[in-house]
Amino acid sequence: MKKIITISREYGSGGHTIGTYVAKELNIPLYDKEIIDMAAQNSGLSPDFIKKTEQNISSGWLYTLLLGASYAAPGTTHIGMNTQNPSVPLADQVFNAQRNVIIELAKKGPCVIVGRCADYILRHCEQINKTDVLNVFIYAPLKDKVKRAIEQKGLDPATAERDVKLIDKRRANHYNTFTERTWGKRDHYDLLINSSLLGLEKTAEMIIEVAKHS
Amino acid sequence: MKKIITISREYGSGGHTIGTYVAKELNIPLYDKEIIDMAAQNSGLSPDFIKKTEQNISSGWLYTLLLGASYAAPGTTHIGMNTQNPSVPLADQVFNAQRNVIIELAKKGPCVIVGRCADYILRHCEQINKTDVLNVFIYAPLKDKVKRAIEQKGLDPATAERDVKLIDKRRANHYNTFTERTWGKRDHYDLLINSSLLGLEKTAEMIIEVAKHS
Repeated sequence: MKKIITISREYGSGGHTIGTYVAKELNIPLYDKEIIDMAAQNSGLSPDFIKKTEQNISSGWLYTLLLGASYAAPGTTHIGMNTQNPSVPLADQVFNAQRNVIIELAKKGPCVIVGRCADYILRHCEQINKTDVLNVFIYAPLKDKVKRAIEQKGLDPATAERDVKLIDKRRANHYNTFTERTWGKRDHYDLLINSSLLGLEKTAEMIIEVAKHS
Repeated sequence: MKKIITISREYGSGGHTIGTYVAKELNIPLYDKEIIDMAAQNSGLSPDFIKKTEQNISSGWLYTLLLGASYAAPGTTHIGMNTQNPSVPLADQVFNAQRNVIIELAKKGPCVIVGRCADYILRHCEQINKTDVLNVFIYAPLKDKVKRAIEQKGLDPATAERDVKLIDKRRANHYNTFTERTWGKRDHYDLLINSSLLGLEKTAEMIIEVAKHS
């Protein structure tokens, strides 16, 4: 039985919802955006800054130059410099803060972790038993992702399509910047599934079955 | 219920064996190397030539130049020229001959087809209902593929590793030459699974469940 399930996902593929079903059914916690607040608490960076930074990266040092003046958490007095360690680029600090949180959560017990390079982070963490981790990637045809973005965000079709493409490009960019890997390439995951094949609930059931039998 | 299951697979991943389990359990035929003989019968090319050609391609015209003198089927008198249509490169003729066979087999009824760009061929065939087709890609970590090649082919470890890498490179090259796609890229398949996760038999069971519920 795999105890920690990481779900990487294309925007609009329903990956978060699938993760929610899996966590509920297995009665284990799900971590997604919660990781932002936890990372903020641990690092002194503001949640808003972490949110903006984590998926808007071209490269660590460039991003630091561009956004260096606006990262400070409320209540901190350092503007334009790193609050934790001036020698580490801000984008790397955001990544490290989230990595530390993900490792702590995985050590605490069974859970579902959505996004945030968790597959990579846990594979390279000596404190985590690799056979405890199931790495899943959820994707879907463009038309289905756009449809979901329209329904959930109330966007017009053109904006929805632009957002889907842009956000996936940023997710790939973020992953590829902070790992030596390529986002969504089969080798890095145990299972990749088109969520339109079975629908979200049945996809979740399949993931649970796979987790139980592996 | 998906009626036609295409299985694309890395060499040594156990994809053929998984396909055999799926076909046996669903009581439907499996087509893999059989397609070579059928394509030979229909095209006038020799089975041996088809076998050598189908996964040893750099490009259609170049391959034709290099192998043009040795393609003729036994009993044909044309040497160095195309027996069917002199204006079509030989490598393209091999692909077309196998494509025609795959389409005829898929039209006949439920089946499992292993390899040979069947996912691409059926997606672009107007005579096939796309909702009848499940496209699966089987992969595995290098060490497990090498181990399987050692066990099944009696190779030494170094030769096995070289073969695994070379044959997968050729499979990718073949697919990428004859389709506008990239072999093993998630978008082209409904499901990609690491066969080492569940083992061959349980992977087959999962594919059957997915086929039944989609």
